[in-house]
Amino acid sequence: MAAGCPSRPILKHLTSRWGVLVLIALQSGTLRFSDLRRQIGGVSERMLAQTLQWLEADGMVNRRAFNTVPPHVEYSLTPIGVEAAEKVRGLVDWLELSLPRILDKASPID
Amino acid sequence: MAAGCPSRPILKHLTSRWGVLVLIALQSGTLRFSDLRRQIGGVSERMLAQTLQWLEADGMVNRRAFNTVPPHVEYSLTPIGVEAAEKVRGLVDWLELSLPRILDKASPID
Repeated sequence: MAAGCPSRPILKHLTSRWGVLVLIALQSGTLRFSDLRRQIGGVSERMLAQTLQWLEADGMVNRRAFNTVPPHVEYSLTPIGVEAAEKVRGLVDWLELSLPRILDKASPID
Repeated sequence: MAAGCPSRPILKHLTSRWGVLVLIALQSGTLRFSDLRRQIGGVSERMLAQTLQWLEADGMVNRRAFNTVPPHVEYSLTPIGVEAAEKVRGLVDWLELSLPRILDKASPID
């Protein structure tokens, strides 16, 4: 809860709009940038690159670049990223399952 | 993963910077606006009000206003909000527990 807690930026990245979806997409295995972008509806190239950079810096995602033409870059979850993805998935799975119940009562304003 | 999925805005609110902390703060019971603001380090009045409005519209939070002078407004979790808070807490508890391990490997850029 403390403003200066070092967990805050990491939590922000893990729960960011695209962070959540990147972690879940990588649960199924290694993916190229273009594959990730195709799987995650609506993400821009810039936002996906930014999100991957955050998750890499936090130690959640491995980036592997091959020295080929055209360049080939692969992303995968680190062991700690696998754990984070499981927790995030717990929330997302619950949300999907509960969605009919939620939409029944919700009065969306956004 | 679909851009138009109705779960997207709800997920956005649940995992928003302040949404996470509001859900967790309300796990311990009903709180007034001023109590919430005190507990959540760094949140502005405006952002807290916005976050509570989202969570109320999504059916996660109950808002109860008493007709007193000065006005007294209380917030609590709905039954579905209790479930959401548990899932969010799963992620946050894991993060706190894993933080030393994460910070050991991370190279923060934000």
